Amino acid sequence: MPTKYYIIYIQIVFFLHLRYGQAQVLYDFTAEPGNGELTVKEGETITITNQSIGGGWIEARNSHGETGLVPEEYVEVSVCVSQSCVPISVCFLRSSWSLHSQTSNGNDPWTAWNSDTSKNLASVRNSWMSTDQEHPQAYQGHVTYNCRFPGFSKSGPELYLLAKMLPKGKEKISMGEVGPVWLYPEVQMECLVADPKKGSKMYGLKSYIEYQVTPSTTNRPVNHRYKHFDWLYERLLEKYGSAIPIPSLPDKQVTGRFDEDFIKLRMERLQSWMSRMCRHPIVSNSEVLQLFLNHQDEKDWKLGKRKAEKDETVGVMIFSQIEAEAPELGLDEVERKCESFSRFTKAMDDKVKDLLAVGHDHWKRCTGPLPKQYQKIAKAFQNLSTVFSSSGYQGESTLTDALTATGKTYEEIATIISEQPKKDLHFLVETNLEYKGILGCFPETITVHKAAIDKLKDADKLVATNKISPHDKPVMAKRVSNMSYALQAEMNHFHSNRIHDYNRVMQFYLEEQVKLYETIAGKLRAALQQYTTL
Amino acid sequence: MPTKYYIIYIQIVFFLHLRYGQAQVLYDFTAEPGNGELTVKEGETITITNQSIGGGWIEARNSHGETGLVPEEYVEVSVCVSQSCVPISVCFLRSSWSLHSQTSNGNDPWTAWNSDTSKNLASVRNSWMSTDQEHPQAYQGHVTYNCRFPGFSKSGPELYLLAKMLPKGKEKISMGEVGPVWLYPEVQMECLVADPKKGSKMYGLKSYIEYQVTPSTTNRPVNHRYKHFDWLYERLLEKYGSAIPIPSLPDKQVTGRFDEDFIKLRMERLQSWMSRMCRHPIVSNSEVLQLFLNHQDEKDWKLGKRKAEKDETVGVMIFSQIEAEAPELGLDEVERKCESFSRFTKAMDDKVKDLLAVGHDHWKRCTGPLPKQYQKIAKAFQNLSTVFSSSGYQGESTLTDALTATGKTYEEIATIISEQPKKDLHFLVETNLEYKGILGCFPETITVHKAAIDKLKDADKLVATNKISPHDKPVMAKRVSNMSYALQAEMNHFHSNRIHDYNRVMQFYLEEQVKLYETIAGKLRAALQQYTTL
Repeated sequence: MPTKYYIIYIQIVFFLHLRYGQAQVLYDFTAEPGNGELTVKEGETITITNQSIGGGWIEARNSHGETGLVPEEYVEVSVCVSQSCVPISVCFLRSSWSLHSQTSNGNDPWTAWNSDTSKNLASVRNSWMSTDQEHPQAYQGHVTYNCRFPGFSKSGPELYLLAKMLPKGKEKISMGEVGPVWLYPEVQMECLVADPKKGSKMYGLKSYIEYQVTPSTTNRPVNHRYKHFDWLYERLLEKYGSAIPIPSLPDKQVTGRFDEDFIKLRMERLQSWMSRMCRHPIVSNSEVLQLFLNHQDEKDWKLGKRKAEKDETVGVMIFSQIEAEAPELGLDEVERKCESFSRFTKAMDDKVKDLLAVGHDHWKRCTGPLPKQYQKIAKAFQNLSTVFSSSGYQGESTLTDALTATGKTYEEIATIISEQPKKDLHFLVETNLEYKGILGCFPETITVHKAAIDKLKDADKLVATNKISPHDKPVMAKRVSNMSYALQAEMNHFHSNRIHDYNRVMQFYLEEQVKLYETIAGKLRAALQQYTTL
Repeated sequence: MPTKYYIIYIQIVFFLHLRYGQAQVLYDFTAEPGNGELTVKEGETITITNQSIGGGWIEARNSHGETGLVPEEYVEVSVCVSQSCVPISVCFLRSSWSLHSQTSNGNDPWTAWNSDTSKNLASVRNSWMSTDQEHPQAYQGHVTYNCRFPGFSKSGPELYLLAKMLPKGKEKISMGEVGPVWLYPEVQMECLVADPKKGSKMYGLKSYIEYQVTPSTTNRPVNHRYKHFDWLYERLLEKYGSAIPIPSLPDKQVTGRFDEDFIKLRMERLQSWMSRMCRHPIVSNSEVLQLFLNHQDEKDWKLGKRKAEKDETVGVMIFSQIEAEAPELGLDEVERKCESFSRFTKAMDDKVKDLLAVGHDHWKRCTGPLPKQYQKIAKAFQNLSTVFSSSGYQGESTLTDALTATGKTYEEIATIISEQPKKDLHFLVETNLEYKGILGCFPETITVHKAAIDKLKDADKLVATNKISPHDKPVMAKRVSNMSYALQAEMNHFHSNRIHDYNRVMQFYLEEQVKLYETIAGKLRAALQQYTTL
């Protein structure tokens, strides 16, 4: 029974909380001065001296004997059993893996496959994943916090394709004008991320930023730290990642995390991410998102977290919760759709990256050489004005004043130009960064689909070699069709959002660009009027 | 008597026209294909095979035996007397030099100075000229067509300061609001340089461009080639250069001289130069300019040319034609004025050059990286549009059409930006180039004044050593004062023109800049309107 293994896991963690042990540092961490923190480097081995500090921190000692606080997410604590230290995350993963092997009955072909030689096992696993989307660390006993598909290694599509006795899926797909579509709620949930506040724990020793998150459904704010968002992201990725692109959160950043601009940018990006999650008909309706937005108190939140972490319907099993109210699709069509989505998302990914590169380049020019050039023009006019005013000739002042004003105008234009990217290019870049994140999820989603298609193609062979029973094949076909409906519904959701988002961002960009050029024209017109009419 | 020497000169030239001889090439000349021309390099020795071709051309043979036409201005024909070949221009200069030495009487202190050792002579000469404005070739037996002060070496200010029995000057200076001013004509002459036409000589073998020059006084057009303008420039420089800045003509250019853009630009620059000459109260009234604009026919023109070339009132002697109707100025004030003009013109020269450098840089950016960047932005939008239109999703066309239009707009903006410098920066650059040319003349003018001031300071010593007679001193003082009035009148003329010209060019520049930014804003607004209103 799964519960048993979770209890074992919890016991190991509990046990670790009580004793000191060694840990591997997974990422560089730079201590903030005066905060009692300890700078550590990726790959370094440190000794945990206090794991019960809480607030996401542990106390550790490095090889030089220095002691200080390190974020617990940045280290991998090892369990020392007999001679070798094994990372606990891998321990857990192995338990889960064997769990699935054990729960499947003796007739399950995958059990037989999994007990093959490790070489065969590796080749089977490779067949689930496209080469460039592999997560080699998943096979190297080194599953880290950042692994984007924690549930993937235990979830080949066969888990769903051949699962027995599935309940009726609660997530419905209907046929809309554009094809298969998710069932959208009547009122779309929105949520506001605002009001970042510095909080502290451990009698002020540890500081952090807390954001106020207010869902439109309740209008009641809850406070969340970045690590809570990150927890939510991990849960959503594990649960929906095979069917729905769950884009990464804005990058972690340790240095300067109390910098005002950084906090503002992170908040803005968390807002975009939350909005996208809230806008998704399946994700917005998920228990875990509802928990995140609507928990009543700390106890409620902690209980909910524990429950969410126990959710078994993760990875490909999400397709078991989806039901398309439409006729079964032929393999050809499924394949054609999958290919076409793959092509489109790959092509869009390329062009979004191009646009980002151009945007980055334009940003650099607008904040570098371009205003510098206008400053030079300004200086040239002003210097000429200064010389002119030294002529001693009468009736010079109208010209020199006008020339000085022209110089000043070009100085202002330099400033306007250098500040413009923050006004318009910023939003264009952010939107495209968001889309780059979403598009980066598709290859994995599409790989799951291709793997399922391949399985279905192999069905006859599997029947012939008694790997599956003859009646498994139509079940597989039905479920591959169901997966395809899910992919199509998701693509249609993506397209609809994309059209909305690009329409909005382009209009915003152009509006700001029009304002820019009108402002410059206006300033130059004012400068012009200072000259004597000829 | 001077006439004698001119006759000798003319005879030498005539003699050269009748026989073949060697010539040194002064400038590179690239033959235009199919025109019977010969490519020659600076420093090359060629043999004249026909000097009676006319139209400014000679026929020559190079060391490889190739024969063809070369502009006679590009070569220096040598007179072979006994062993050594002496350039004829130097022969002429030497004749003129000895002429002046001979015409001065035995008591003339300058004669005594001039018969000093050559070392002393050189130091005396150097004292007339500021170091950075020297024309070393004038002292190296290599006086070329381009020498900007052909009459200068024979015209130290003493020539004027100590000249006997000067007639009353016809060019009056009166006291205006701003100080000493030239007497301006009631109606300012204007002149139009237009309608460049290809003409030909020698039965079509030689082509050239003829410009139509129409003075506002007669409204009757005369035709002139570039070489005629150049002749006029040489005459004006020789006659007025000590008192009035006579800016150089636009550069000679041999290759591509029938190129439409080149002809247009040269015409434009000749127009500016002619306008400036016509706007000058002294120059516009000169016999030589009147000849250039008003000669009746070829015979009239040739006779007038010969007369102008014989004009003896050149170099510092121009001051003898100027008369200030104002009290004599003290040496201190003369010196202070001279210093202040020197400082101003030097400072303005610096800033004009800075502005030109900035303008040049801006031009390069506006025609290079800037439009390239807008093209990249255009391409990024268009590529995104192409990908979007491949989505197969319904209702995509409004966005893709708008995105394509946005891309096209940025392409247009790229073109507009790259063509803008020709519209506005061009005039700003041309005006400043013109002023750079004018300002480049002041150091020489100021040097003549400083030399005169120094002479006056030395007057007591010269009297004591019997180099000048005691009553020469007040005459010198009066004439130095007269020179100062001329300089002040010219500076006031310069300031008045400068204020007018910069007022005009800045207004024009800003008007065009306003139009530029308004055009861009308008185009972007049109692109914006293609998007669906949200």
